[in-house]
Amino acid sequence: MSVPTSIKVFAPATVANVGCGYDVLGFPVEKYGDTIKLELRDDDRLVVQEIEGADGIPFETDLNVSTVSMNAFFDAFGDRRGFDVFIDKNIPPGSGLGSSASSSVAAVYALNEYLGIPFTKKELIAFAMEGERAASSKPHADNVAPSLLGGFTIIRSYDPLDVFGIPSPSELRVTVIYPHIEVKTSDAKKMLRSQVKLSDAVRQWGNVAGMVSGLILGDFDLIGRSLQDVIVEPVRSILIPYYEEIKSIALDQGALGFNISGSGPSMFALTRSEKTATAIRKDANEFLSERGIDSMVFTSRINGEGAKVV
Amino acid sequence: MSVPTSIKVFAPATVANVGCGYDVLGFPVEKYGDTIKLELRDDDRLVVQEIEGADGIPFETDLNVSTVSMNAFFDAFGDRRGFDVFIDKNIPPGSGLGSSASSSVAAVYALNEYLGIPFTKKELIAFAMEGERAASSKPHADNVAPSLLGGFTIIRSYDPLDVFGIPSPSELRVTVIYPHIEVKTSDAKKMLRSQVKLSDAVRQWGNVAGMVSGLILGDFDLIGRSLQDVIVEPVRSILIPYYEEIKSIALDQGALGFNISGSGPSMFALTRSEKTATAIRKDANEFLSERGIDSMVFTSRINGEGAKVV
Repeated sequence: MSVPTSIKVFAPATVANVGCGYDVLGFPVEKYGDTIKLELRDDDRLVVQEIEGADGIPFETDLNVSTVSMNAFFDAFGDRRGFDVFIDKNIPPGSGLGSSASSSVAAVYALNEYLGIPFTKKELIAFAMEGERAASSKPHADNVAPSLLGGFTIIRSYDPLDVFGIPSPSELRVTVIYPHIEVKTSDAKKMLRSQVKLSDAVRQWGNVAGMVSGLILGDFDLIGRSLQDVIVEPVRSILIPYYEEIKSIALDQGALGFNISGSGPSMFALTRSEKTATAIRKDANEFLSERGIDSMVFTSRINGEGAKVV
Repeated sequence: MSVPTSIKVFAPATVANVGCGYDVLGFPVEKYGDTIKLELRDDDRLVVQEIEGADGIPFETDLNVSTVSMNAFFDAFGDRRGFDVFIDKNIPPGSGLGSSASSSVAAVYALNEYLGIPFTKKELIAFAMEGERAASSKPHADNVAPSLLGGFTIIRSYDPLDVFGIPSPSELRVTVIYPHIEVKTSDAKKMLRSQVKLSDAVRQWGNVAGMVSGLILGDFDLIGRSLQDVIVEPVRSILIPYYEEIKSIALDQGALGFNISGSGPSMFALTRSEKTATAIRKDANEFLSERGIDSMVFTSRINGEGAKVV
């Protein structure tokens, strides 16, 4: 019996923050994300051979998020192997859809599967977070964790890392609207003040309580009422052209709620049916086309599975 | 058939804030709370005839929280009736256990039952909140709502008021430790800064997400990990003598978590069994007795019913 010498993994793009859940809540979409193929080498080096679908991503092993994450994996695993790495990105960096997280997750998930699953999915989070550190200097987990685990995922704490999934209603759909405009995460982060009003913080955690309850209990109205963000959206939405107009389009079509995905410029609407999600997709697409803004707009279920071998 | 001319209602004491859930989360206990009897009068006046169990509570109709709440009820109901009001308090004001809320809730619940239930329980919240406004100048709902509705109750929003209950595991127990030391809510409020660090706010809403998930999904470990408060406890616990020692006693005995009830001085420990709750009760009682601090320490289930006719 011959041992396979390669493995190919898909890791989904993710919507993070999810309105009130800044830095703590995220979920993956179904079809979009990165695919990474690893091919065993004769030596113990990691070599990025190919990056498709996005420009400007570094091939250097200590800068590329996939190989940075793989190195973190090997540091914990001990027994180092060499791989050629082939990266197929269909969500570019700077989208607000967890592009770097998809690459990091696909890499460590592939490695883990190839090596006989020495780590749990939750253990892989820490390795993929090293890729996030390389991409943005902050090792955040709100894209990495849902991309790995699937489903709505909560980062309760970073120190110690405490991550868990919650159920959500199967009817739930998302429309993702990604206008091809660059918003750098570092700029978006800068816009946030380091202090917030206690009264705003209380409103935010009231909404977090509502959002989590609504998702677990399948209460769509509660999800809709809770999908608000009094802290981040007011400042970050300024960076996204036509944000308010697109939000109105979504809410007019019956979206449960609407917000910025990650640090933008992608936006998302949650809906309780494919029909509503599709109507929003069409209207938003038309609106952006008319204004000459190139964009990618799609609908999806919540991806309940996360990263997987393909 | 004679129409009854009186009604008697019990409304439970409540633990508010519940660690991370400052201003948004509360639950009622079982046996402790206020009992109010209303007796129909010939005129349309409200007259507080008797207040047992606590000193210094005003008899004046525009100051007493029960009659203030009843007046708010009548303002909405229209058809005014007169009642003699007999109040039996077994949780005194300033305990941190929602004393004023119990009186307000018992009064409006009694009135509603007497008049043939013209309002839903949720509608009564707004009337009882007027009692809270009279007691503390702020019409908060995190004692009133759980005392009325029973169970863990979330105040998602105050404007508009949005309140809902969530399930919690039946095994859950609480030990309440009420040292007879006065902490004025107004003093406790003053200690809170109007601005908080964004990073602390994020930790807090991560814990809120964990707490709510843990309660609904029956995950005791998650409840324990989430029952933390990085914003309010650090400043308010200073006002409570031996706070850290009593917290250690509870955690050493296996409490899931420990925090301040309302604005103190009462404290509470959540446990996953009556046995642990009782062990904490005994140890805390002994600790406080040895130091000559008069106190009331009791265990309870989560009261799933809320206010009721007795």
